[in-house]
Amino acid sequence: MNLIKKPVTGMKDVLPAEAELRNYVTEVIRSTYAAYGFLQIETPAVEHLANLNSKQGGENEKLIFRILKRGEKLKLEEARTAQDLTEEGLRYDLTVPLVRFYSAHQAELPSPFKALQMGPVWRADRPQKGRFRQFVQCDIDILGEATNLAEIELILATTRALANLGFSGFEVRIGDRRLLSAMATYAGFPGEQLDEVFIILDKMDKIGLDGVRTELVEAGFDAGAAQRYLSLFAALSEKQGIEGIRFLKETLGDCLEEKVAENLIEIIECVSGTKEADFELVFDPTLVRGMSYYTGTIFEISMPEFGASAGGGGRYDRMVGKFTGQDVPACGFSIGFERILLLLQERGFRIPAAGTKRAFLIEKGASTGQISRIMQEAEAVRADGDRVLVVRMNKNKKFQKEQLTAEGYTEIREFFNRDQE
Amino acid sequence: MNLIKKPVTGMKDVLPAEAELRNYVTEVIRSTYAAYGFLQIETPAVEHLANLNSKQGGENEKLIFRILKRGEKLKLEEARTAQDLTEEGLRYDLTVPLVRFYSAHQAELPSPFKALQMGPVWRADRPQKGRFRQFVQCDIDILGEATNLAEIELILATTRALANLGFSGFEVRIGDRRLLSAMATYAGFPGEQLDEVFIILDKMDKIGLDGVRTELVEAGFDAGAAQRYLSLFAALSEKQGIEGIRFLKETLGDCLEEKVAENLIEIIECVSGTKEADFELVFDPTLVRGMSYYTGTIFEISMPEFGASAGGGGRYDRMVGKFTGQDVPACGFSIGFERILLLLQERGFRIPAAGTKRAFLIEKGASTGQISRIMQEAEAVRADGDRVLVVRMNKNKKFQKEQLTAEGYTEIREFFNRDQE
Repeated sequence: MNLIKKPVTGMKDVLPAEAELRNYVTEVIRSTYAAYGFLQIETPAVEHLANLNSKQGGENEKLIFRILKRGEKLKLEEARTAQDLTEEGLRYDLTVPLVRFYSAHQAELPSPFKALQMGPVWRADRPQKGRFRQFVQCDIDILGEATNLAEIELILATTRALANLGFSGFEVRIGDRRLLSAMATYAGFPGEQLDEVFIILDKMDKIGLDGVRTELVEAGFDAGAAQRYLSLFAALSEKQGIEGIRFLKETLGDCLEEKVAENLIEIIECVSGTKEADFELVFDPTLVRGMSYYTGTIFEISMPEFGASAGGGGRYDRMVGKFTGQDVPACGFSIGFERILLLLQERGFRIPAAGTKRAFLIEKGASTGQISRIMQEAEAVRADGDRVLVVRMNKNKKFQKEQLTAEGYTEIREFFNRDQE
Repeated sequence: MNLIKKPVTGMKDVLPAEAELRNYVTEVIRSTYAAYGFLQIETPAVEHLANLNSKQGGENEKLIFRILKRGEKLKLEEARTAQDLTEEGLRYDLTVPLVRFYSAHQAELPSPFKALQMGPVWRADRPQKGRFRQFVQCDIDILGEATNLAEIELILATTRALANLGFSGFEVRIGDRRLLSAMATYAGFPGEQLDEVFIILDKMDKIGLDGVRTELVEAGFDAGAAQRYLSLFAALSEKQGIEGIRFLKETLGDCLEEKVAENLIEIIECVSGTKEADFELVFDPTLVRGMSYYTGTIFEISMPEFGASAGGGGRYDRMVGKFTGQDVPACGFSIGFERILLLLQERGFRIPAAGTKRAFLIEKGASTGQISRIMQEAEAVRADGDRVLVVRMNKNKKFQKEQLTAEGYTEIREFFNRDQE
């Protein structure tokens, strides 16, 4: 008996109740995004390692499941490193495959191209509670739209999808990578070390203004720069939303590219003036977002019930160029599908019922003719839109009926051999 | 420029039109099977190699994509074979993972358990037209039902799903592994060589009665046995359906287990008396089905337009025991999802329309206030169930409108800056 019953480490089996919820959430999201003109696409689970390892994936590049070369291509004797044995791996996100897809099929796609992707990705993370090595991502992206129409649509569509799933009272926080850079440059940090500064800034939520200052100085940054930097954030903490952006525009002067502030204000005003979902779009100057590929606006969903982010995205205008040599403006928003699912499960969310669930119990020993008649009746009821489960009657009928009731079968009919004569 | 635009060898990108069709087909199949009480489940894409290589996968075991061990587990220097570098691989079918799943979760599942699975599988096949290394399988299985209620339901549900997709006039061919074995034993073939006999028998479609006889003799089988064997098929070719089964029952006598013939007749009579879909269930004594795990009934869908099989399945009562030590009756039916999709595409199948597709074109230079008003209008239309694509007006507006019309946008509205004052 050497066959293994458990799923592989860090991946999970999805049982019927969860599978039904996953399908429901998928369909709500899909139909919402379809109403905005997003077109679904699919890319293979397997991707070229050359693409996965192209510095677009950040820390995820360390978590790739590599696929062993096969047959003649596998030269075990000559292999010095794992790289010699692999050319392909499982995708760790949907963004790198999307950009490859767009680069290959651009001529066949509408422009701008509004893409929807929902599918599994794989990361060889250390297994821990609630974090799996296979999980679903759900991304919308607009490629070929340089103006903030992209950001406005992405935010409206994503928040509408969340509203359609019953979420309300949440926040979408928005910032801009160029604003972040301008603030750091204005404070006096050297341009080539900004990423390091942002990694420390990203801890603001946890360690506060003073904590960030201390860590910056401990990391060897100039104390004066740290002081000027944190003064900006201190001043901002007393200004509300757009007022803060205007303050930065005036203060940062030439450090800030033209129109970055105006662009952000337009997005906030237009979304706030349009939105039907119950959420707030708020300017957050401390928002960093992990991926280094972002080139402009960045955003993130905060749910009050949920510590961590429940989704996010931003503009990445320079990734298509890595494939084609020609940059194409691009902006995306990803819903944290697994987190949304967890929240719905914790809330005891119930899927709206679709038709009655009926069970037909057939006594053992029924003749072919009897079974035929019962099956015909079941077929007719199904054609009317109800669900019908046909099963053999168990010896312990009482237990069987209790089980069926627990599974949601509200009408249970029994067919006895004597009735059918 | 070292990033690669094409998908990996043998796998494909799914463009929007095909993705929409795939979703539609998936939903029709899902809702049909739900009406019969099948419960969807999901297993990870990655499976233990110990399970994948357990002789349940037949030829597919040669086509596994193996995943490289990681970190400390990867001992490259000590590795002598590829096996030393891998413990996991991508699943090549949904049956082995289903049985693992059932073995692990049996106590939490209803009995009998009616499972639906739809998901990708991976096989490192030689790439060729229409055959891909990643493709979707769509299986229903009933575990824990020993009687032919399982076969009857599987056939009724699957044919209803095909009917709901617009298919008619097809055949489901049915046979039984035990009948096949009894015929070969009756003819005088040695019990341990039956699989070899069946591989040759499986060519009947192509090489006919005489071809099969010649190949059997060439393969070293006794000419007398081959003669007796082919006489049986010759006699059967003059009998219709159930008449053929009755003839075999009489002729084979003790070679055939009790009730095998009656069981098959019951299935055919009950399905034929119940079915609402337009198809014929026909007895086919030459049906073999490749997988060695089948223990009883086997069936296959034949579409007149499509040379090859468009789906199939059968009973496999001894696979659960490989995991748990305790056999559980099991029977499954798989729809050839990719083939069904190809057939629909070749027929020029059009998905029933869901709402009007409207496009709003916004002239460049629109103010935030104007964009807000247009977006508000779009949101209202979407709430009514229509699709609204909001895009910037291109310089070549005529071309843009032609493109949108080609994409199915039947109402195109233009918003000019002057209109909005």
